[in-house]
Amino acid sequence: MNINSFSSKLLENAVNEFAKLPGIGRKTSLRLVLHLLRKDFTEVEQLSDAMLRLRREICYCKICHNISDSEICEICSNPLRDHTTVCVVESVKDVMSVENTMQYKGLYHVLGGIISPIDGIGPDDLTFDALEKKVSEGGINEIILALSTTMEGDTTNFYIYRRLNKYPVKITTLARGVSVGDELEYADQITLGRSLINRQLFVMES
Amino acid sequence: MNINSFSSKLLENAVNEFAKLPGIGRKTSLRLVLHLLRKDFTEVEQLSDAMLRLRREICYCKICHNISDSEICEICSNPLRDHTTVCVVESVKDVMSVENTMQYKGLYHVLGGIISPIDGIGPDDLTFDALEKKVSEGGINEIILALSTTMEGDTTNFYIYRRLNKYPVKITTLARGVSVGDELEYADQITLGRSLINRQLFVMES
Repeated sequence: MNINSFSSKLLENAVNEFAKLPGIGRKTSLRLVLHLLRKDFTEVEQLSDAMLRLRREICYCKICHNISDSEICEICSNPLRDHTTVCVVESVKDVMSVENTMQYKGLYHVLGGIISPIDGIGPDDLTFDALEKKVSEGGINEIILALSTTMEGDTTNFYIYRRLNKYPVKITTLARGVSVGDELEYADQITLGRSLINRQLFVMES
Repeated sequence: MNINSFSSKLLENAVNEFAKLPGIGRKTSLRLVLHLLRKDFTEVEQLSDAMLRLRREICYCKICHNISDSEICEICSNPLRDHTTVCVVESVKDVMSVENTMQYKGLYHVLGGIISPIDGIGPDDLTFDALEKKVSEGGINEIILALSTTMEGDTTNFYIYRRLNKYPVKITTLARGVSVGDELEYADQITLGRSLINRQLFVMES
């Protein structure tokens, strides 16, 4: 869109700022901004406040590096959770994904990324030292590696395995297989191959 | 996404606020919010400021009702533009669309919507009175109706025609026809029919 067509600098400025967000182009940005113009001032203020407060006040949990409102997050400070199991994930989003399954009651460790030489992310940029320290102090029985099933994820899994392998801890990884609800003809060869090798005893779900 | 999976109230609040924007679901909202968390505080502040200033300081031009930084917008206060021609559009966005064509040098009149009984928008909700006043004061030679080619647009065109028809002003509407770049087989019958009726003398573009 031609920048000269904005009749207002204020409008232009707001559109430019929104268009900096990922996945928001100039047309979408204009739509959002015109939407805000139709709203009450208090509603715009709420959005603005939520944004500023989040950025200003958010903490990262000292134990698991997950996003938190306090020094220790709700998961790590919950005595009902299994403190002997730690699920290693790439990001805060992945914590939410695993939580949403409602199948996991242990703790987490957020790496903050995965090893990716192409993006210039090496082991020193991630929270491996904190993870090793946690494991070396004992009290943890199992480390579950829940990283992406990509080249980078596999590299990171291998790196973690090499570092933690000397401690008396069980290291597991997520099961790979055909997705629930997938038709077999669309499953890729490697996934299908692994599913065959790791086939499980058929159990009727009750 | 399960709301319980947010480990932070601040995060949850920000995600809820962003998800109120049109076309932004909870997943996109989370992506935007996590993006902001990775940015410097000043960048978040810029976005927040742009939003608040826009909502607080924006004016609507007293003459054409377009968005403006001052009482009279840049278009209406520009002496180089043709003040005898007024293009009637539905919204601020449409002003931008017409400006982007760079084919129009007159003024605008923004209605703020079109007549749509289904959405409860009647003539009193739009700026018809201001338009009629403008025309009745004289000095305007042509009114160009540039509304959507929908049922509502046609109704509004007809309504405006009935109100302005008693004044010595030429009322025109945008040409309807096959879009530039369209293949004929995909043009709809009504458009194609109108294009045939309103066929033009062939002129080589130089």
